[in-house]
Amino acid sequence: MVKRVGNQTILLENTGVLSSAGVVGKKEGEGPLKESFDMIYEDEYLGQETFEAAESMLLKNAINLALEKSAKSADEIDLALSGDLLNQCMASTYGVKDFGFSHIGLFGACSTCALSCGLGALLVETGIANTVLASTSSHFCTAERQFRFPLEYGSKSTPTSQTTVTGAGAFVLSKTENNPKIKAVTFGKVKDFDITDANNMGAAMAPAAADTIKAYFDDTGATPSEFDLILTGDLGKVGSDLLIELLTEKGIDISSVHNDCGTMIFDVNSKDFAAGGSGCGCSASVVSTYIMDKFKKGELSRILFIGTGALLSPTATNQGLSIPSIAHLIEFAL
Amino acid sequence: MVKRVGNQTILLENTGVLSSAGVVGKKEGEGPLKESFDMIYEDEYLGQETFEAAESMLLKNAINLALEKSAKSADEIDLALSGDLLNQCMASTYGVKDFGFSHIGLFGACSTCALSCGLGALLVETGIANTVLASTSSHFCTAERQFRFPLEYGSKSTPTSQTTVTGAGAFVLSKTENNPKIKAVTFGKVKDFDITDANNMGAAMAPAAADTIKAYFDDTGATPSEFDLILTGDLGKVGSDLLIELLTEKGIDISSVHNDCGTMIFDVNSKDFAAGGSGCGCSASVVSTYIMDKFKKGELSRILFIGTGALLSPTATNQGLSIPSIAHLIEFAL
Repeated sequence: MVKRVGNQTILLENTGVLSSAGVVGKKEGEGPLKESFDMIYEDEYLGQETFEAAESMLLKNAINLALEKSAKSADEIDLALSGDLLNQCMASTYGVKDFGFSHIGLFGACSTCALSCGLGALLVETGIANTVLASTSSHFCTAERQFRFPLEYGSKSTPTSQTTVTGAGAFVLSKTENNPKIKAVTFGKVKDFDITDANNMGAAMAPAAADTIKAYFDDTGATPSEFDLILTGDLGKVGSDLLIELLTEKGIDISSVHNDCGTMIFDVNSKDFAAGGSGCGCSASVVSTYIMDKFKKGELSRILFIGTGALLSPTATNQGLSIPSIAHLIEFAL
Repeated sequence: MVKRVGNQTILLENTGVLSSAGVVGKKEGEGPLKESFDMIYEDEYLGQETFEAAESMLLKNAINLALEKSAKSADEIDLALSGDLLNQCMASTYGVKDFGFSHIGLFGACSTCALSCGLGALLVETGIANTVLASTSSHFCTAERQFRFPLEYGSKSTPTSQTTVTGAGAFVLSKTENNPKIKAVTFGKVKDFDITDANNMGAAMAPAAADTIKAYFDDTGATPSEFDLILTGDLGKVGSDLLIELLTEKGIDISSVHNDCGTMIFDVNSKDFAAGGSGCGCSASVVSTYIMDKFKKGELSRILFIGTGALLSPTATNQGLSIPSIAHLIEFAL
């Protein structure tokens, strides 16, 4: 059973994470969360001929691991939801095509983990599907080529630019006794605050995150102190600071419980990763492993996870357009 | 209430099309369906500076017209679902950003009309949303630049290549007394039959359409003769012939009730449009106007609409990869 509250939030009761898995590349596997990931790949090609094929392989491997942990076969998945950053969601298409899933393609840029898990949970809760697979991926080398410059150009990154994570995450969702459950979903609005710098996506996404978080609190009457963690993915360092500021202006103080997948996955004190990580695979790999593990260990009991997506297109960037953004929220709780 | 039947099909009862609107460009407005469209734009730029901005404007206008007909304001839309063909669904992002909708971005290439209406109807039926807006668009000039060559190159098209429709369609879905209702949804699987010719998408998509149509008949026990029309969008002429052939091999004869939005929107006897139309806006503009009107006039009472998408990416084409495809089916009935 679902229940709409307020303007944007939908509550649900019985749907949870049956299993999840997250895989990453070498640099992520050397970072602060290295102990959490299910698999770390030293070879950025994963034995494939192109970076794009490598990204599809990351997704495939995360899906296979999540299926394995749930003891479900691909045939038992009623619906698979996935998307990614590449043109025409290429990584997902080639990543899922051999599984034989009924498939819904999503586009939410880096919000895709929250979008696919949130929508997937609602489909399960209402009986549209019994078992849903939600998954997403990103790859540093495919994203650089797509959105900035091919690596071969040897471009320098700016201090505000986040590093796209090489990684993927997959979640099997069903009505389960397993924890955590997905208790609420707030789908965000496309927000445009006229940021045009493709190397400062944190600033572009922070207002969208603030808008969705405020909508959730308005809709439910909950307060930040009720949560163990309010986790964004991925604003990075610049965007996180901005989010705290924007919410404080709206009378909401999340500073003591906020963290961000982008600042958790890399060591932001090192100059190489100063602004943190980003990409669909960032929050997907962090939430599917480190965060889910903390629920299992009893170290978390109620959190908000806000996936933030900069709806950036290379064509739009070349045309000098602003970067609209969106943020989707899900509440995970015991 | 929804009910899953068989492997892939979900039945529903109470959700229908409250209103719909379709807008097109000049060439579509000179074709066989010219009397049906809500608006025909002579200027392919729609007064904008770029083709991409023109496509967003098409989408915006279709949405505004559909809202007007439903007497709903944008605020009364609980969720908007949209997607398009462009890199990172750029036309949708810029098309919806000023409405303030809670938004779910979809990627299904030319299947997006069926995907957004099918998923939207399920969200309404189960109370996840009371009112959903489903919309999509395409534009000849943005698609040529994206997937083939910029128009300025003056490239010739091959006999099997479909013409991307300049057009958009929008549907307001709710529990309504209006007809038609959406009675069933079958989400398709990503199918790959190793077609690598980006100028022969009909051939790439036909197997996906055949697979989803067969799944629907297997799941429901219905037969083709129960339908006034089995409408694909958009296989064009080449793909339509192939679909009939593929289904005949599976023992399903749809030849007497089949038609295709791509062959309906242009005069396929003229050499300019020999293979027919394609693009998200093709089936969206045809179904939202011509087909919905026929329901209103009592000329149709039960049809299947199968949106077919070639999950083509310019990067994949450049890498010589095959074109995986997907087809999503919805049953419209009184």
